[in-house]
Amino acid sequence: MQVLTGTTEYFKGIGPVTFEGLESDNPLAFRWYDETRVVAGRPLKDWLRFACSYWHSFNGNGSDPFGGPTHFFAWDQRSDVLDRARDKMDAAFEFFTKMSLPFYCFHDVDLVDYGNDVAENERRLQAITDYALEKQTATGVQLLWGTANLFSHVRYMNGAATNPDFRAVAHAGAQVKAALDATLKLGGENYVFWGGREGYMSLLNTNMKKEQEHMARFLHMSKDYARKQGFKGTFFIEPKPCEPTKHQYDYDAATVISFLRQYDLLNDFKLNIEVNHATLAGHTFQHELQVAADAGLLGSMDANRGDYQNGWDTDQFPNNLNELTEAMLIILEAGGFSGGGINFDAKIRRNSTDAADLFYAHIGGMDAFARALIIADNVLQKSEYRKLRADRYQSFADGPGRDFEEGTLSLEALRDLAIQNGEPEQISGRQEYYENIINRFI
Amino acid sequence: MQVLTGTTEYFKGIGPVTFEGLESDNPLAFRWYDETRVVAGRPLKDWLRFACSYWHSFNGNGSDPFGGPTHFFAWDQRSDVLDRARDKMDAAFEFFTKMSLPFYCFHDVDLVDYGNDVAENERRLQAITDYALEKQTATGVQLLWGTANLFSHVRYMNGAATNPDFRAVAHAGAQVKAALDATLKLGGENYVFWGGREGYMSLLNTNMKKEQEHMARFLHMSKDYARKQGFKGTFFIEPKPCEPTKHQYDYDAATVISFLRQYDLLNDFKLNIEVNHATLAGHTFQHELQVAADAGLLGSMDANRGDYQNGWDTDQFPNNLNELTEAMLIILEAGGFSGGGINFDAKIRRNSTDAADLFYAHIGGMDAFARALIIADNVLQKSEYRKLRADRYQSFADGPGRDFEEGTLSLEALRDLAIQNGEPEQISGRQEYYENIINRFI
Amino acid sequence: MQVLTGTTEYFKGIGPVTFEGLESDNPLAFRWYDETRVVAGRPLKDWLRFACSYWHSFNGNGSDPFGGPTHFFAWDQRSDVLDRARDKMDAAFEFFTKMSLPFYCFHDVDLVDYGNDVAENERRLQAITDYALEKQTATGVQLLWGTANLFSHVRYMNGAATNPDFRAVAHAGAQVKAALDATLKLGGENYVFWGGREGYMSLLNTNMKKEQEHMARFLHMSKDYARKQGFKGTFFIEPKPCEPTKHQYDYDAATVISFLRQYDLLNDFKLNIEVNHATLAGHTFQHELQVAADAGLLGSMDANRGDYQNGWDTDQFPNNLNELTEAMLIILEAGGFSGGGINFDAKIRRNSTDAADLFYAHIGGMDAFARALIIADNVLQKSEYRKLRADRYQSFADGPGRDFEEGTLSLEALRDLAIQNGEPEQISGRQEYYENIINRFI
Amino acid sequence: MQVLTGTTEYFKGIGPVTFEGLESDNPLAFRWYDETRVVAGRPLKDWLRFACSYWHSFNGNGSDPFGGPTHFFAWDQRSDVLDRARDKMDAAFEFFTKMSLPFYCFHDVDLVDYGNDVAENERRLQAITDYALEKQTATGVQLLWGTANLFSHVRYMNGAATNPDFRAVAHAGAQVKAALDATLKLGGENYVFWGGREGYMSLLNTNMKKEQEHMARFLHMSKDYARKQGFKGTFFIEPKPCEPTKHQYDYDAATVISFLRQYDLLNDFKLNIEVNHATLAGHTFQHELQVAADAGLLGSMDANRGDYQNGWDTDQFPNNLNELTEAMLIILEAGGFSGGGINFDAKIRRNSTDAADLFYAHIGGMDAFARALIIADNVLQKSEYRKLRADRYQSFADGPGRDFEEGTLSLEALRDLAIQNGEPEQISGRQEYYENIINRFI
Ligand SMILES: [Co+2]
Ligand SMILES: [Co+2]
Ligand SMILES: [Co+2]
Ligand SMILES: [Co+2]
Ligand SMILES: [Co+2]
Ligand SMILES: [Co+2]
Ligand SMILES: [Co+2]
Ligand SMILES: [Co+2]
Repeated sequence: MQVLTGTTEYFKGIGPVTFEGLESDNPLAFRWYDETRVVAGRPLKDWLRFACSYWHSFNGNGSDPFGGPTHFFAWDQRSDVLDRARDKMDAAFEFFTKMSLPFYCFHDVDLVDYGNDVAENERRLQAITDYALEKQTATGVQLLWGTANLFSHVRYMNGAATNPDFRAVAHAGAQVKAALDATLKLGGENYVFWGGREGYMSLLNTNMKKEQEHMARFLHMSKDYARKQGFKGTFFIEPKPCEPTKHQYDYDAATVISFLRQYDLLNDFKLNIEVNHATLAGHTFQHELQVAADAGLLGSMDANRGDYQNGWDTDQFPNNLNELTEAMLIILEAGGFSGGGINFDAKIRRNSTDAADLFYAHIGGMDAFARALIIADNVLQKSEYRKLRADRYQSFADGPGRDFEEGTLSLEALRDLAIQNGEPEQISGRQEYYENIINRFI
Repeated sequence: MQVLTGTTEYFKGIGPVTFEGLESDNPLAFRWYDETRVVAGRPLKDWLRFACSYWHSFNGNGSDPFGGPTHFFAWDQRSDVLDRARDKMDAAFEFFTKMSLPFYCFHDVDLVDYGNDVAENERRLQAITDYALEKQTATGVQLLWGTANLFSHVRYMNGAATNPDFRAVAHAGAQVKAALDATLKLGGENYVFWGGREGYMSLLNTNMKKEQEHMARFLHMSKDYARKQGFKGTFFIEPKPCEPTKHQYDYDAATVISFLRQYDLLNDFKLNIEVNHATLAGHTFQHELQVAADAGLLGSMDANRGDYQNGWDTDQFPNNLNELTEAMLIILEAGGFSGGGINFDAKIRRNSTDAADLFYAHIGGMDAFARALIIADNVLQKSEYRKLRADRYQSFADGPGRDFEEGTLSLEALRDLAIQNGEPEQISGRQEYYENIINRFI
Repeated sequence: MQVLTGTTEYFKGIGPVTFEGLESDNPLAFRWYDETRVVAGRPLKDWLRFACSYWHSFNGNGSDPFGGPTHFFAWDQRSDVLDRARDKMDAAFEFFTKMSLPFYCFHDVDLVDYGNDVAENERRLQAITDYALEKQTATGVQLLWGTANLFSHVRYMNGAATNPDFRAVAHAGAQVKAALDATLKLGGENYVFWGGREGYMSLLNTNMKKEQEHMARFLHMSKDYARKQGFKGTFFIEPKPCEPTKHQYDYDAATVISFLRQYDLLNDFKLNIEVNHATLAGHTFQHELQVAADAGLLGSMDANRGDYQNGWDTDQFPNNLNELTEAMLIILEAGGFSGGGINFDAKIRRNSTDAADLFYAHIGGMDAFARALIIADNVLQKSEYRKLRADRYQSFADGPGRDFEEGTLSLEALRDLAIQNGEPEQISGRQEYYENIINRFI
Repeated sequence: MQVLTGTTEYFKGIGPVTFEGLESDNPLAFRWYDETRVVAGRPLKDWLRFACSYWHSFNGNGSDPFGGPTHFFAWDQRSDVLDRARDKMDAAFEFFTKMSLPFYCFHDVDLVDYGNDVAENERRLQAITDYALEKQTATGVQLLWGTANLFSHVRYMNGAATNPDFRAVAHAGAQVKAALDATLKLGGENYVFWGGREGYMSLLNTNMKKEQEHMARFLHMSKDYARKQGFKGTFFIEPKPCEPTKHQYDYDAATVISFLRQYDLLNDFKLNIEVNHATLAGHTFQHELQVAADAGLLGSMDANRGDYQNGWDTDQFPNNLNELTEAMLIILEAGGFSGGGINFDAKIRRNSTDAADLFYAHIGGMDAFARALIIADNVLQKSEYRKLRADRYQSFADGPGRDFEEGTLSLEALRDLAIQNGEPEQISGRQEYYENIINRFI
């Protein structure tokens, strides 16, 4: 990918980051991510479809609930709001291209600061997306998805689409409309809803049923608008169980799928599964992927990792090879993402304050995913993993087992079969054997 | 209620336990639970519909993963399996009647030990339910629900209805058939499915989709059989997230509702919500109740409490007044349970080894629920709680808010309203005020 | 207490809040907290020693990791830093006196904004503490403890006393020196260390042993300085397991006590136990109190509550009567706090945006504590609770049990006694009975 | 190692398991664990000192709180208690030698069933340890440590050394005496205390201080007895936070170290850190190792892994390479264990019912540790990891930083240095860079 800088080069002396292979110990090179390497019939680039998150990488300033900013950006200094936005975008595209990141994702307010004037916000978004379009054209970097930030503004403190005050809901609508327009304009392949404040702080003051009905209504309106404008992509819901709310309505994959089915949204919406959200919900990431895949709704993923001892969304960069391999097994068997990709919804630590840290973080994550995909493919191609698992269900392939699956057995018949066949022999689940297979290929 | 003992009185010197009121400090009397006291138009007995669990109270021997039995029962000594079962039933009905417990619940194997011979197990269950029927008639105690234990036998180590081996599924069918027959015979009002091993130990060796389809198939077969036999009651699914499995398919209320909707089981199935299962799933009990109530599926509940610092199902007796009051608010507003009641799926501690401990535990639990119901009714009747919450949603009562609810607004119209109305004023959620209302009535 | 307002009254139309008793349903009155009511030989005011936290109540603006401020203060508007500080202090003392709060607590930067100039910061602190001294004298409100904020400034992103860069440690020293001077000047009874960044984000880049030695060194230096200046009060360490760090060195009470003992700080330091920090560490609050009390180190407490389903420090106002009663049992049996009191380290919710919400929150908390103390005293005075527990250990009162305690038995002798006495009989732990006692007195 | 079977070969057709290297895909061979391979100056065998746990591998029958046994052993069938014990020991040594496991560990009751007769139990233990001694001599397999099971018997339901009933304490003494005798006789290098019931189920009925004093007294008596008998090895305490108790006194490494220091036991006791116990306590395993190592108390470890979503001690076999590498970094830098080794306190899953599963599980675990040690050594030898971390603390090497460490600076001097040096520059913690180093060497 051709590096594109603006008038200022923000990451001087770094990049472009290229594939150097296993022998390299250059910390600013890829050791595994050779985007052209073909695995399971497709180049890595097509399987992985890496995206950079604008918010963590270009807006996140390192502040946390106990302290102020630690990341100070050279691109965040000009007084004019659009000048600042363009500088930031220069930095972003410089980073994307130095890292060969084929996609990026944003919230409306990531691209340009918003004020309280709806029309003026729309103008700002139009201006900066004009600039983005130029940049995309010049580089080939694409928009994986756009979204609207419906959680940071004070007006959303009681929710956005689920706000008990209709006037706040209207503002959510205004933002989503503009964000959809922007996504469409930039050729965004998908549009994401993450309902950070769509939930409750206290059940005591909440009519949960009414709020969820409002949520469904809002999604239908948004979808209808986008389709009318010609949007052909997929809508994603990104589940999260809590934080900032006590309980978020889009708790986990199963909850969201239930909601989509109940409110007739299954045709247009899929899931964007985030690792750290999965673990906050008490699931493995693999579990959430499987739930989505089994429903045909594995749209996209947000790559990061949580901290198993800390109960908030730490959004660290992923690095655990065993976990990533198990995840890639599911993604490979599902045939990849439906429209989405791997978006690094991950942030460098508050105390990672060198300019190079953003590069190290993404290199580590991209290499880890590439490696995990290669390992998972080896597991599927070279080991008995798939066969072992399929064989476990052999008794349903024919005879009364098949009748059971097909619904032609009665409970009485089942009981008679139990008597007739006697006690089944013990069949080991062989969990440790399966686990050894994974490590054989790492 | 008339106390019924068998030939042996097992709880000598204890009971009957009666309502003595607040002035009493008799630890073997009720201070709050006056079953005839009318609250919100119904006597406490009708609201609460307390049930005793056979398993914890008459089978649980105090063993845990680190130690053997500590509870040794006088009714568990005779060598003949049916003699032993009848002695146990004598003890159980003595306890029910001494405690004025109007209902009980059981698994098949709670009533009488099962072996590996399906037909013999059926004979045993028929014999002991003959005896149960006599006891029920003599006392008026009723069966709240029956169920089959599909998790303890070695043949279910890989699941029951979801076992990869169809021969194990057949045995599950045999057990459910007999348990349904027994429930029907005893006039059981409901039948429960708790899928203790319906889940996975490792996702690596599991075809989750196939297993869930088997689950749905099995439930349909069971329901069809029961309906054919004339069962008019409700089927309950009891969610639990994990333990003994790593992940149980009936994770929580939302997951179960999704499953019921996906597989067309909503007409016959409702939920049985257990407190400790809710908290293991990362929810408050109140949340799970509300989810069930909002879907019209609040069937019944398993009363107990977990330990917020211990990550397994401790099944302790409930005692927390603030939490119980918040739960009863939801149950009251939902109009009570749909067919079910409050089943004490709770066990005295392993080191609670006095005969009286079983009484103290149930007295504490029943008094706590009665008190919580009275408090909740006061909150609803005497405070502004209900009005405050309703008023929060006033903006949807008419005008464009109502149009939004009715689906006649477009996203563009929403955006125009945002501009037209400007920034909404801040409206406090007043959480602390709501919380103070609760304590005002405790 | 005489209400003291400055030139502006910030909480117009509210207060003073007085005790009106159980019959009152005035939400702005105390129903339980009659500060003069004598319990266990002392007025409630002396047992409870309530303090208001400056930071949450007068600085906290409602922002969280996902959104900006929601609380906007009339006292936070003047451009001059000391003018603003004095306005805020006017609001604070107005609130303290309207609420009859006898104490307050602060961090240095709560009182007045700090910049990067050490000497200028000292001057600001001196100026605002001059004003505080006037206010204290005028009202009788006292300083329960002071502390320095060593976690918000960017220079502490890698720790304060444990920062790998000595230059950052020096700044921590400068701040503590000034905060100690201020505490001494205002007659503060205690001084607190909460080491929010004293821990690690990653063990990989950390020399934990060296950092803990630095911590000990820093505490000794601070203590020596304060003593030299004539400080007679107690130093408190406030344990917290994590957040903002991945792991904080002052993890829990046991860890801190170990540290104090190892580094010879037991004579000057005690513990300040926070409810929410206890639960984040996997303990009940009661447990942490008991650990501190058993070591003679129960100095003070930070009152709040966490959310059992959310893994961060939610710092909600306390309201659970069962839990508070169990806590007050321990505090009563320990004879109260050693120098400290009950500091509301609690914040109104982000969406509690009415001026009155701060009042409701504190009223609810103060009433709940008063009520819990009264209940606990009843349990201790009127029930067999204390005797029951003491009787469990009766076998150590004399004979070989006493010899065992006194260290005059050998292991061989113990073995011989086992043979001689045979199997001990089972003695019930009677947990449910104990729990019923609590509810009998709520 | 020479395979030793008894009269029956229990694992027919399996083993001996040998090192075959990376090219092998024999699931019954080692791919990494070449016991003679020298790493950091010592053969793998000496660094790792693998031990097999008698309890999980030869006694654990697969039962859990929701179901009965699933593992049925050919060696568990003879009616005579000592015959059975010898058969089991034959199986155990067959396994040890087929796996080349140099060590084993046991509780007294693992070796032979105990009854309620103290003297008879002693005779049984003597008889079976006679047999063990023969086996050890014949094979060279050694005893890593012995221990007494003070938690399974009903008499310990309220604790063992901390039981409120002194008569139960006496039995604990009898068991420990005999277990110490057995350990000494078999040349055991260490002796472990894991206090499974030394804690509380409810704080309400507990005098925690008294119980902990009893614990200390008991440990002193045990240590004194063993030393008198000539035991030269180390005593280990194995921390665990809970389960089966609500709270165990030996909560985590910091708590145990505090206890050892308080009660003057630091000279004789060290720690045995278990992975799953660390995570149950809210720590990483690495953290617990570091705490122990920093105190010079890293005695030994129990190898397994927990499940991050399940809140009980799952004791699964370890397999995560990233986590194990981070652990081995600490162990390598600490110079290895003090006396102990790596004991597989891990159990095959309840549904792992093939005889070979025990082999796969240990092979996977041993290979994972060997690989992690090799990786960690590479990180230490070939990367800048160690230097990077040391350099972070450079400012304490001389000048006022060193004065600070040496205790010759006052708080005033620190403050003056802050002014003199001004704001420190930001120094990145470079967490992602450190993490990438790990993955570079996996
Ligand atoms: Co995300
Ligand atoms: Co996240
Ligand atoms: Co239940
Ligand atoms: Co339960
Ligand atoms: Co605090
Ligand atoms: Co806090
Ligand atoms: Co262990
Ligand atoms: Co364990």
